[in-house]
Amino acid sequence: MLVASSKGIIMSDKLILENFMPYRLARLSSTVSSTIARAYDKEFGLSIPEWRVIAILGRFPGLSAVEVAEQTFLDKVAVSRAVTKLLKSGRIDREFADADRRRSILNLSEKGREVHDRVAKLALEFEKNLLDGLNESDIESFDKVMDKLLARALKP
Amino acid sequence: MLVASSKGIIMSDKLILENFMPYRLARLSSTVSSTIARAYDKEFGLSIPEWRVIAILGRFPGLSAVEVAEQTFLDKVAVSRAVTKLLKSGRIDREFADADRRRSILNLSEKGREVHDRVAKLALEFEKNLLDGLNESDIESFDKVMDKLLARALKP
Repeated sequence: MLVASSKGIIMSDKLILENFMPYRLARLSSTVSSTIARAYDKEFGLSIPEWRVIAILGRFPGLSAVEVAEQTFLDKVAVSRAVTKLLKSGRIDREFADADRRRSILNLSEKGREVHDRVAKLALEFEKNLLDGLNESDIESFDKVMDKLLARALKP
Repeated sequence: MLVASSKGIIMSDKLILENFMPYRLARLSSTVSSTIARAYDKEFGLSIPEWRVIAILGRFPGLSAVEVAEQTFLDKVAVSRAVTKLLKSGRIDREFADADRRRSILNLSEKGREVHDRVAKLALEFEKNLLDGLNESDIESFDKVMDKLLARALKP
């Protein structure tokens, strides 16, 4: 059985990777993240994991390293390297939440907050450009389908 | 200035991470990949990078390790670990394309092809479930916007 749309999404009994929705989402997400990364790498020397850690702590201060890693949606080892680098460069601070140093919480330093605010500005401009040319009903519909797909993917 | 849709996409001058399109794409893509990973990890002991390498070689045989890594849209170090593990477990084969062993090409072994075909079946069932409940015009519109966003993100 085939359910075919005009172009991309074709459901068949053979895996055609470039038409496979999870692969297409990965491609789009990665391309979007890499494109914007070129701007903040050039200006601030940040990698994708480093920027994601900064963005998450900007929005949700005081998370543990594990919680930050979960929110980045990136490889744990890569995020751990990024956290180490950001601690060394003084862009984030670590505090230990208990005496035996088993739980630490992370926050942006003043320097990190400054980087955050400047990259956030770039990021929002990038988003504006990305969505420019789409009409409002396209965006609304895309938005709705993203929510539905996320809800379905989270369903046990 | 605000351009607000019914729910998710809000463009403002402050970065609200959970409304930021690149972040939402990363979240959706990662959630979709992780959900399907639970099935193939359980049955075949494969990680996400391992399955992506297998899927890519199933579709595009004879790529180099670098080319495979690019197509996975994952952290290079994580993909390199996955390739090593798949070589060790005999699921992929490596041939050297020149005498000085500087360029190697990868292919699925017979064992790897079997795993590919069985996981592909799971993956397609998962995709079918994921898209179930969306109507054809939602899928078409989503498809179209994904193409547009990809094209815009690739634009230099």
